[in-house]
Amino acid sequence: MESGPRGGSRPAEPGPCLSSQCGADQAASASVLSAAGAEPGSRTLAVAAVLPAGGCGERMGVPTPKQFCPVLERPLISYTLQALERACWIKDVVVVVTEENMQAMENIIQKYKHKSISLVEAGVTRHRSIFNGLRALADNRLNSKLSKPEVVIIHDAVRPFFDEDILLKVVTAAKEHGAAGAVRPLVSTVISPSADGCLDYSLERARHRASEMPQAFLFDVIYEAYQQCSDYDLEFGTECLQLALKYCHIKAKLVEGSPDLWKVTYKRDLYAAESIIKERISQEICIVMDPKENEEHIGHLLEEILKTELNHVQVTSQALYNAGSDIQQINLEQCYNFVCVNVKTPDFRETQKLLSMLEESNFSLLYPIVVVSAHFLDFKLVSPSQKMESLMWIREFAKEMRKKNILLYGLLINHSQDEQKLQENLRQGAIIITALIKERNSALIGQLLVA
Amino acid sequence: MESGPRGGSRPAEPGPCLSSQCGADQAASASVLSAAGAEPGSRTLAVAAVLPAGGCGERMGVPTPKQFCPVLERPLISYTLQALERACWIKDVVVVVTEENMQAMENIIQKYKHKSISLVEAGVTRHRSIFNGLRALADNRLNSKLSKPEVVIIHDAVRPFFDEDILLKVVTAAKEHGAAGAVRPLVSTVISPSADGCLDYSLERARHRASEMPQAFLFDVIYEAYQQCSDYDLEFGTECLQLALKYCHIKAKLVEGSPDLWKVTYKRDLYAAESIIKERISQEICIVMDPKENEEHIGHLLEEILKTELNHVQVTSQALYNAGSDIQQINLEQCYNFVCVNVKTPDFRETQKLLSMLEESNFSLLYPIVVVSAHFLDFKLVSPSQKMESLMWIREFAKEMRKKNILLYGLLINHSQDEQKLQENLRQGAIIITALIKERNSALIGQLLVA
Repeated sequence: MESGPRGGSRPAEPGPCLSSQCGADQAASASVLSAAGAEPGSRTLAVAAVLPAGGCGERMGVPTPKQFCPVLERPLISYTLQALERACWIKDVVVVVTEENMQAMENIIQKYKHKSISLVEAGVTRHRSIFNGLRALADNRLNSKLSKPEVVIIHDAVRPFFDEDILLKVVTAAKEHGAAGAVRPLVSTVISPSADGCLDYSLERARHRASEMPQAFLFDVIYEAYQQCSDYDLEFGTECLQLALKYCHIKAKLVEGSPDLWKVTYKRDLYAAESIIKERISQEICIVMDPKENEEHIGHLLEEILKTELNHVQVTSQALYNAGSDIQQINLEQCYNFVCVNVKTPDFRETQKLLSMLEESNFSLLYPIVVVSAHFLDFKLVSPSQKMESLMWIREFAKEMRKKNILLYGLLINHSQDEQKLQENLRQGAIIITALIKERNSALIGQLLVA
Repeated sequence: MESGPRGGSRPAEPGPCLSSQCGADQAASASVLSAAGAEPGSRTLAVAAVLPAGGCGERMGVPTPKQFCPVLERPLISYTLQALERACWIKDVVVVVTEENMQAMENIIQKYKHKSISLVEAGVTRHRSIFNGLRALADNRLNSKLSKPEVVIIHDAVRPFFDEDILLKVVTAAKEHGAAGAVRPLVSTVISPSADGCLDYSLERARHRASEMPQAFLFDVIYEAYQQCSDYDLEFGTECLQLALKYCHIKAKLVEGSPDLWKVTYKRDLYAAESIIKERISQEICIVMDPKENEEHIGHLLEEILKTELNHVQVTSQALYNAGSDIQQINLEQCYNFVCVNVKTPDFRETQKLLSMLEESNFSLLYPIVVVSAHFLDFKLVSPSQKMESLMWIREFAKEMRKKNILLYGLLINHSQDEQKLQENLRQGAIIITALIKERNSALIGQLLVA
């Protein structure tokens, strides 16, 4: 039951603070998990995860269940699966969905190339769904690709923001204590109403915690608890840690989690999720320029200004001519934002080269990539209106790119001979580039903006 | 101690579901408050509000205290004050701020023309700050413009999203029960940890509530409670309802609130707040066109397409030539989005007229106004590049308008003679207009976009 990496064809996994590769991290995690294991030596822990996703999201106020709501056009649950995939040591992920959403879920897994997922049909309540997921892992059926894990993680489909560290912590604690769960301080005071709707008592905020996800359990503990628990528990209960306590006398270890563990509950949470994801994928900009041409000077000026304007953003530069492997290098650095500098090259040649490479790759599978095609022109020598002739081309091309999840914008910068004016124009260009990257607005693709 | 409207010079108060005028609503509210009062007849309740705003926002992870964080460039607390101002029957609002933020708060009140606000210095804890606010109302000092109210509302500076209805409900309940507070269902299960950091017990979620704001009290009840309460309460307590229970034996009435009552706590909440406010001010678009010219046809076509594309948005049209009072009319309908149709008029004449009127008014005081200057041109007859000459003009003009909180964008629509193509171009124009209104991005002002 060795857990290993789930294939080398996993999709690129971005986010500035997240590792995209399982190699080194996996070794570290495996070592932690191995150290926490009962037996010393090289055997690592067999871990699976159950993700109940059968809810109807009534609190959201939208017809689509919240786990399927699109965020940057991708369903929320796909982000959660992606975050679980970062922990390569999780062998299987069982997603529990209602029959009516089974096909939609299949499509999501296929489209975003999620690995090691098994689908199980949901029950009518959350607890019944989790029980169904655990049963699938326990069964050890002949044709099942699933096998019983030593530790099982239970997480929510609508909590996409967590890092591997909290998973490791709850799994390690579960191995030691039998059960563990993430907790957070309470935001509001909790009170108990009397029957007539008045205040009976209020709880001391500092002495209580909000129980969040992920949680983890020794598989035998939580499975035993579910097998024993009453119909009332299955219908009205919400807390898995409570079941382990009630039926197996296991006092779960509580692990303090970060604010990232929040659950997408209301419509405003979808807004917040989209903003957070946009921010995460806007942390790096790659400036692409042709070193063979005499354009390095202006390209590097733009690079410097972007670095000054964007304190927290990493700005790098690349040349496309050197080798085809450069784009691969960019991907490893999880870059979703490109500024392509075209100076002497006619029209959009440099940009076209970059776009072909991006098109051939699969980088835009999970997130829309922004490409700003930057052009320089001295407005005193040539009227910017002449450059407008290119507009039609970029508009049509942007429409094509849109289908590949690549957002292409044009940017015309006044290459003034006056050094001070040039600096001002470059600064204006940097502001526009920042806005395009931050908003990632598909309605403005193909536009030629002027700085 | 009659409460009356606080002057006719209050700023425009927008939001699609919010009333902008105090007249009719006030009569209704006054009648409710009067009916709830002890004495029958015309006497309405004297109500004041205390807004503790002395927190440092440590959970936000940003250096600025969260109540002063900008949302669409305006500090969050100004939105909360604006929401309180909608309830004209609140006579005084006491804002409690730290000494170091006193001047900043003065500036906010002046800049956004908030009325009936008194500032009081904060204590070192939330409870001490509220106590200071109550003291200022109780004092009846000779030079004080404040007077002791019958009922006092306590609210949070960082909860800007509530409507008058919940204020009325808690005030009415407080008048009857002595104390009242808004509550919400729990999002997470609440648990109690043992000393060793393990699960001791979990609370049944359905039997508990999160205590939210606003709360309201008979002034004498809460003031008495604060005068009696211990230093421990003042240092470590968080719940005003609990003080009324403990020291005055008043069991507060709990009022179920809407999800709108949430508190801006984390950075993600600021993202959500900005998205909600943007959505609220994007619910109406006014198309401005000159009926004297032969442009009504194309203007109305654009209007129809916008109506089709934007299901939930109210699209109206206006003529500027009729009378100066038309803009006043637009304001009453709380419109923050204008599309100005220029067909035969040279360049931007229609747009300039609108901008002058907006500039003279004070409509952009609270929210950035979007103005899209739409131009029509048959690209087959005239190259769009010719129209680009106007670009420089709109860029400079947009910079000026920006200072007045007006965001000006140009939009060039291909007025194709082919009916089907024209429809497609208008649809594309509608998508761009929608994006500009939705994003309200100041980095793209002065750009000439093409549809």
